[in-house]
Amino acid sequence: MAQRTAAASPRGRTNDPEGLRRRLVDAAYAAFTTRGYHSTALHDLKRQAGATGGALSYHFPTKKELGLAVLRDRVADAVEETWIKPVLSAATAAEGIQAVFAGIVSELEQRGGGVSGCPLNNLALELSREDADFQALVETIFARWRNALADKIRADQSAGAGAMNGLDPDAFATFVVAAYSGAMAMAKVSQSTEPLTVCAGQLAKIIQERRVS
Amino acid sequence: MAQRTAAASPRGRTNDPEGLRRRLVDAAYAAFTTRGYHSTALHDLKRQAGATGGALSYHFPTKKELGLAVLRDRVADAVEETWIKPVLSAATAAEGIQAVFAGIVSELEQRGGGVSGCPLNNLALELSREDADFQALVETIFARWRNALADKIRADQSAGAGAMNGLDPDAFATFVVAAYSGAMAMAKVSQSTEPLTVCAGQLAKIIQERRVS
Repeated sequence: MAQRTAAASPRGRTNDPEGLRRRLVDAAYAAFTTRGYHSTALHDLKRQAGATGGALSYHFPTKKELGLAVLRDRVADAVEETWIKPVLSAATAAEGIQAVFAGIVSELEQRGGGVSGCPLNNLALELSREDADFQALVETIFARWRNALADKIRADQSAGAGAMNGLDPDAFATFVVAAYSGAMAMAKVSQSTEPLTVCAGQLAKIIQERRVS
Repeated sequence: MAQRTAAASPRGRTNDPEGLRRRLVDAAYAAFTTRGYHSTALHDLKRQAGATGGALSYHFPTKKELGLAVLRDRVADAVEETWIKPVLSAATAAEGIQAVFAGIVSELEQRGGGVSGCPLNNLALELSREDADFQALVETIFARWRNALADKIRADQSAGAGAMNGLDPDAFATFVVAAYSGAMAMAKVSQSTEPLTVCAGQLAKIIQERRVS
């Protein structure tokens, strides 16, 4: 706390390099995933984090290194917390998927400040074609997400839960991630949670019909 | 043709204002939907289109007006040509959807130069939250796309084709657009058509199972 106060002092100095690094990555995560990587000026992030130019270049010699840190330390965590943990801890994949959609819809509605979209998708579309390092990292995050879902579906099938019988775990996991990503993009465009609710309902129906048959 | 030659002359002048406008919008469409709106310098577009600064500001006093023209005159057309026309002219919505996915996969594979993603999604995610005019236009394009699909599904249901029975046309149309948009984003990230093929296969299965039951 004392260090935080020091960092916010008018001189903008800090004796807490780790805290400063964290504030830089936090500010960059917020800016990159909403305004975009290219539209964000390093100058503004520096000011928001209370960092000197020297401190910024000490931690992140280039903007790209800051972008990679945001993906590695924040975006990957967001996918883990929002999707992977809730799905893995749910009774079944089907319940987990519905719980994630419902959780996101309710969070967006409580926030009431508009839909920024999926942090991963926003950055993925902006960065993945322009740089091989960005692309590799974004692809790793997507792969972990898909694989966690596919593993949960496989576990349901082994347990004989019935709902996911006859379904290709990897293909269905890819499909769920695609439907969610697209729905989130449409939610951002329409500034409404409706596309998410509609897609969650369609996925529930698809899984349900499979269970019955 | 003569006018085109004149425009490409070393003096960069033109007596063909409509042709120049078109070349500016073409250059902006290519740049905005691949590199992004913010990363594109007007200076580069001017040079590519062989336009003077005066000509650029005559046609597009602001970058935003150029962005709106790209959405209205190019992105909307791309959605019309890629999705709406093929679906409406197919025998059924199910066949139309499969034909569109197959067409896009084959086009991407023939091009071989990597996946740029969906022009609408790329721009939608970058622009829709930052400006009400961009958002309204992007939303209109998405709505036309969804509505065309939903209308085709309704027509199938009226014709008693069977495949789409009991399905909510608007909800399923939203779902197809979401799955496609997300799959295209994943294709861009992985620089592979696989997510598109997988999602087309899942949609085919979903429709097929409904037909059987």
